[in-house]
Amino acid sequence: MPIDLRSDTVTRPTPGMREAMAAAEVGDDVYGEDPTVNALEAEVAALFGHEAALFCPTGSMANQIALQLSVPPGAELLCDADAHVITYEMGAAAAYGGITSRTWPAVGADVDPDVVAGMIRPDGYWAVPTRAIAVEQTHNRGGGGVIPLDTLRQLRRVADEAQVALHCDGARIWHAHVADGVPLASYGALFDTLSVCLSKGLGAPVGSLIVGAADKIERARVIRKRMGGGMRQAGVLAAAGRYALSHHIDRLAEDHAKAARLAEAIAPFGVLAAPVRTNLVPLDLTKAPMDAHALTAAARAEGVLISVLGPRIARLVTHMDVTDTAVDQAATTLTHILRA
Amino acid sequence: MPIDLRSDTVTRPTPGMREAMAAAEVGDDVYGEDPTVNALEAEVAALFGHEAALFCPTGSMANQIALQLSVPPGAELLCDADAHVITYEMGAAAAYGGITSRTWPAVGADVDPDVVAGMIRPDGYWAVPTRAIAVEQTHNRGGGGVIPLDTLRQLRRVADEAQVALHCDGARIWHAHVADGVPLASYGALFDTLSVCLSKGLGAPVGSLIVGAADKIERARVIRKRMGGGMRQAGVLAAAGRYALSHHIDRLAEDHAKAARLAEAIAPFGVLAAPVRTNLVPLDLTKAPMDAHALTAAARAEGVLISVLGPRIARLVTHMDVTDTAVDQAATTLTHILRA
Amino acid sequence: MPIDLRSDTVTRPTPGMREAMAAAEVGDDVYGEDPTVNALEAEVAALFGHEAALFCPTGSMANQIALQLSVPPGAELLCDADAHVITYEMGAAAAYGGITSRTWPAVGADVDPDVVAGMIRPDGYWAVPTRAIAVEQTHNRGGGGVIPLDTLRQLRRVADEAQVALHCDGARIWHAHVADGVPLASYGALFDTLSVCLSKGLGAPVGSLIVGAADKIERARVIRKRMGGGMRQAGVLAAAGRYALSHHIDRLAEDHAKAARLAEAIAPFGVLAAPVRTNLVPLDLTKAPMDAHALTAAARAEGVLISVLGPRIARLVTHMDVTDTAVDQAATTLTHILRA
Amino acid sequence: MPIDLRSDTVTRPTPGMREAMAAAEVGDDVYGEDPTVNALEAEVAALFGHEAALFCPTGSMANQIALQLSVPPGAELLCDADAHVITYEMGAAAAYGGITSRTWPAVGADVDPDVVAGMIRPDGYWAVPTRAIAVEQTHNRGGGGVIPLDTLRQLRRVADEAQVALHCDGARIWHAHVADGVPLASYGALFDTLSVCLSKGLGAPVGSLIVGAADKIERARVIRKRMGGGMRQAGVLAAAGRYALSHHIDRLAEDHAKAARLAEAIAPFGVLAAPVRTNLVPLDLTKAPMDAHALTAAARAEGVLISVLGPRIARLVTHMDVTDTAVDQAATTLTHILRA
Repeated sequence: MPIDLRSDTVTRPTPGMREAMAAAEVGDDVYGEDPTVNALEAEVAALFGHEAALFCPTGSMANQIALQLSVPPGAELLCDADAHVITYEMGAAAAYGGITSRTWPAVGADVDPDVVAGMIRPDGYWAVPTRAIAVEQTHNRGGGGVIPLDTLRQLRRVADEAQVALHCDGARIWHAHVADGVPLASYGALFDTLSVCLSKGLGAPVGSLIVGAADKIERARVIRKRMGGGMRQAGVLAAAGRYALSHHIDRLAEDHAKAARLAEAIAPFGVLAAPVRTNLVPLDLTKAPMDAHALTAAARAEGVLISVLGPRIARLVTHMDVTDTAVDQAATTLTHILRA
Repeated sequence: MPIDLRSDTVTRPTPGMREAMAAAEVGDDVYGEDPTVNALEAEVAALFGHEAALFCPTGSMANQIALQLSVPPGAELLCDADAHVITYEMGAAAAYGGITSRTWPAVGADVDPDVVAGMIRPDGYWAVPTRAIAVEQTHNRGGGGVIPLDTLRQLRRVADEAQVALHCDGARIWHAHVADGVPLASYGALFDTLSVCLSKGLGAPVGSLIVGAADKIERARVIRKRMGGGMRQAGVLAAAGRYALSHHIDRLAEDHAKAARLAEAIAPFGVLAAPVRTNLVPLDLTKAPMDAHALTAAARAEGVLISVLGPRIARLVTHMDVTDTAVDQAATTLTHILRA
Repeated sequence: MPIDLRSDTVTRPTPGMREAMAAAEVGDDVYGEDPTVNALEAEVAALFGHEAALFCPTGSMANQIALQLSVPPGAELLCDADAHVITYEMGAAAAYGGITSRTWPAVGADVDPDVVAGMIRPDGYWAVPTRAIAVEQTHNRGGGGVIPLDTLRQLRRVADEAQVALHCDGARIWHAHVADGVPLASYGALFDTLSVCLSKGLGAPVGSLIVGAADKIERARVIRKRMGGGMRQAGVLAAAGRYALSHHIDRLAEDHAKAARLAEAIAPFGVLAAPVRTNLVPLDLTKAPMDAHALTAAARAEGVLISVLGPRIARLVTHMDVTDTAVDQAATTLTHILRA
Repeated sequence: MPIDLRSDTVTRPTPGMREAMAAAEVGDDVYGEDPTVNALEAEVAALFGHEAALFCPTGSMANQIALQLSVPPGAELLCDADAHVITYEMGAAAAYGGITSRTWPAVGADVDPDVVAGMIRPDGYWAVPTRAIAVEQTHNRGGGGVIPLDTLRQLRRVADEAQVALHCDGARIWHAHVADGVPLASYGALFDTLSVCLSKGLGAPVGSLIVGAADKIERARVIRKRMGGGMRQAGVLAAAGRYALSHHIDRLAEDHAKAARLAEAIAPFGVLAAPVRTNLVPLDLTKAPMDAHALTAAARAEGVLISVLGPRIARLVTHMDVTDTAVDQAATTLTHILRA
């Protein structure tokens, strides 16, 4: 069994979580009658201080519904050039939402509110109007970096002044919450919509939610159906989510510690792309003697799985299913390879 | 607890099914590594004699992926005016796939291959070219009617001659198989793509599959991600599907018998829209003393839930979770109401 | 020089029209500053009793803007299965507007308001809502047939009751006006939007207009720019249009007479698809000894150009640039061919 | 009559051009039978050393057709954040083409080929693949700046290596040709597709062309019809274009000289956003005592029209219809206002 550091999406449900799923009370969620889904939606909305939430099969769907809610065809979204919403969601914002994207250069998880403010374009006959800004917390291609609360507050002011929506791709917002000690509701208060994921660090098998105002979520329900996300007895999945919320948020600190330990081992080789803040360890192999595919292949041969994000960019991810021992083993393996 | 005849989507997983789910071996299906999903996909592909299949969160997504595979933006789909793919999937074919639809009038589940042939338009500079024909087996708004195998064979010839794809929305194809005794592979042989649903009559909580040639299914994987359907440890759902395939196909005959009994009770009131062939009982209240909303409200007051499909169209559906006793009770309730 | 009966789009501007174009006062129409365009828009709006109109490079663009105005992505348009808007506009309604289309069977220009009423679907969470109905006056594939004013009035009532928009593809509405003696304003009063064409029977080289309420036309201006239709000194074209409106409407009666003469000559061969009402002569060659391509080729060899609309459907069109003598010559040629 | 420096789109056809239009031989261009359109298309293709060209009503349509040719829905376009194709074309690339856009920061007309190379993403299952890069020559929001030929050559190598298309929005490529003395064919050789405009500096009333390989232009013809750009006797417009090509290219040097003279007058006030290279004079009013709307209003009161591009960004444009005297007058007016 290899040590799987490719992503925190690979985690398998724990026995406790499986038990919760097996016992879940369910109903037809397309009719709004699945009690476990309804409970999960209410819980997550409350966590972020919003009126409502909607359970979706994936984070991509939750993000895309949020974008379609805020940006009509012909209008534009601003985000960074590495944002998950325009990188890893197969172009759905444009292909399905008709949404133009303009991007600022991605540098880790950093966002400069002034740069964003300078890009906004007003409504009018002549040019594509900006209708939403999206940020990612923590930032996937930004190496798990955390956007400081103060930066987000400035962005909120920018959005308010321009009267555009602010969306948070919060697939790993739990990690930001644990790393910076910021209450989830403090994040929630700054965004019109958020997507949050249960099947990454939190360890549930399937599911994300979009969070926002009640009228938005009502419209989201129609878009979810159009996207093909109106599942039936989804309570079996929601039960895993509820379990994850109760049991797996605080423990993310352990994953952060594991990532820090990995980073420490690798740092001397000059391949750390950015300081490690959460559970992602981003590697920049520009000055390394091997590229990302070579490193990945060598590691796989030694039983360690990592992800390639670009010709010279790789990523290690810690999570529930990788033990401290495994992390140490992986660190040893990688240092051997990099030393060679 | 009311007698729920609104839809066969309301069924809840049985203890055996729950057990299968709890024991499911899982992996990350976005990486193609969920063994239970892989097994289910292989099984379903084999059942229909096709190379491959892809697990999706809903039948709507499976249908829409199939349409996007066969019809590029700017080309057209032919189907009947009551087809699920353009009625109940929130306009996704056009909104997300850019697909023009032209329709023939719906009369139950009947399809006239000559009418369809006459509607096909060739490729060219002047007019929108036809690229696919979709039929529905059994037909939802068509009252659970079954398209005869011979009609489907003629349609296949029509499609072949015009070199257009033939898709089957087979959400309830299991019922056609049981009602007409046609092997699933015989249906499979006639279509380029099929969607089949696990969470209607078969009783699984969540999931449908699209079935087709290997290269199509590979492209389907990309579209599924764009639609937001790339789930992670989906094996917990696939396990329910596998259980359903083994345990719940043959028993559909019982649901058909229940529907027939309901129909028999109601027939004297002249409200049966079409002969009952499977598990749907379609009501046409045009000549009844009450419209569909009134009937539904009256039935609900007596603990019987039915569906409104139009001002004077209603529908009863039998399924695993409604017992023979409950069916008899519902028949009594409805005859009382209709008599009044 | 062949006798060109393919379409009334082939007409060339007359000397008088050319003079008007050469003398046209112009400005930048994207700034709304072309006086000739503005005058044409005001004139056409007034003719149909509407508040405003917008000049477009083609009738296809005018139609598609109208559809995008009335039907948002995810909603549906009802029209007949042969309607120009879903047949000859390359699928733009779905590809660019995300518009689902459902169709009633086309039988000439006939429309049965009850059939249309029965197809309308209300707004709601479950099904694609109908937002517009489109008819075509006169009907192109319907052989230049004219929808009776009374039928249109019934359709208006159907649309009002359902609160959906009614659009008229009025590319050849001038011919209906001349054939039935119905004032253009009487037609205008029945529709939310109309498209009218200057470059078919009216003989202008380029241009159509969309007509409607002022707020719709303001939004239409944005959509026109998105479609790539925001031309600059379009006054040179609008001048031709203004000239056509003054000089070429009443004379359409001559084209109708020419078509009637052609029809009379051909009728004995049993190939007339429908009675000739305006300037189109529709041929149905189902029972003829040759198909549409063979007839077209034979006619071309004799210097007569006609259009193929389907394997056994052809069309003759009379217009300004075909003289009475030419019509008689064409009739002789065609009867010779059909007799053979 | 005010001095109109808003745009070079405001020019009116000269008597010679009007004469050419009045004498134009025409036909139905939807049938490919307009001899003047065909001649213009052949001429422009030849000028740029390409196989074919297609006449379009606007530059926006020519650009959008080019993008739809090279980038399928779900794939991405790279361009700068101020590019006309995603700024002033109302979001058509995403709304109609389903095209994701990622942008590099705009700094005048500058392009750094390494930055562009670093943004390209390969085909694959995981991320949105890059399919085209677009540049703008000269650059509109970039103040009429000219991309050096050498930079374009490097970009070509970048595009070749990644096997993505390179498109030039060459609405004002004539100005680059005149300013840098680069043959049009040298530009043509570097791009897969170009759009070129006849109705800006060249002074024709209406029209742009897309230039490229024959098979692309054949597909472009279908897309043009879908966009609503299939005009009929467009030869009246093409004649103006042919006249402009013969008479108005070399004279652009005069417009450049006028712009330089305006710039020289204004430069002392520190509002010149960039050195003037062609016929655009970009103003950056960040440090000026008034914003763009105030300046524009003050100038208008004195009979000088200029354009607002942002709260503190304005633009002056010289063209055929503004004389040397008028330019001097405008310079005097503006210096008075800025001095105040």
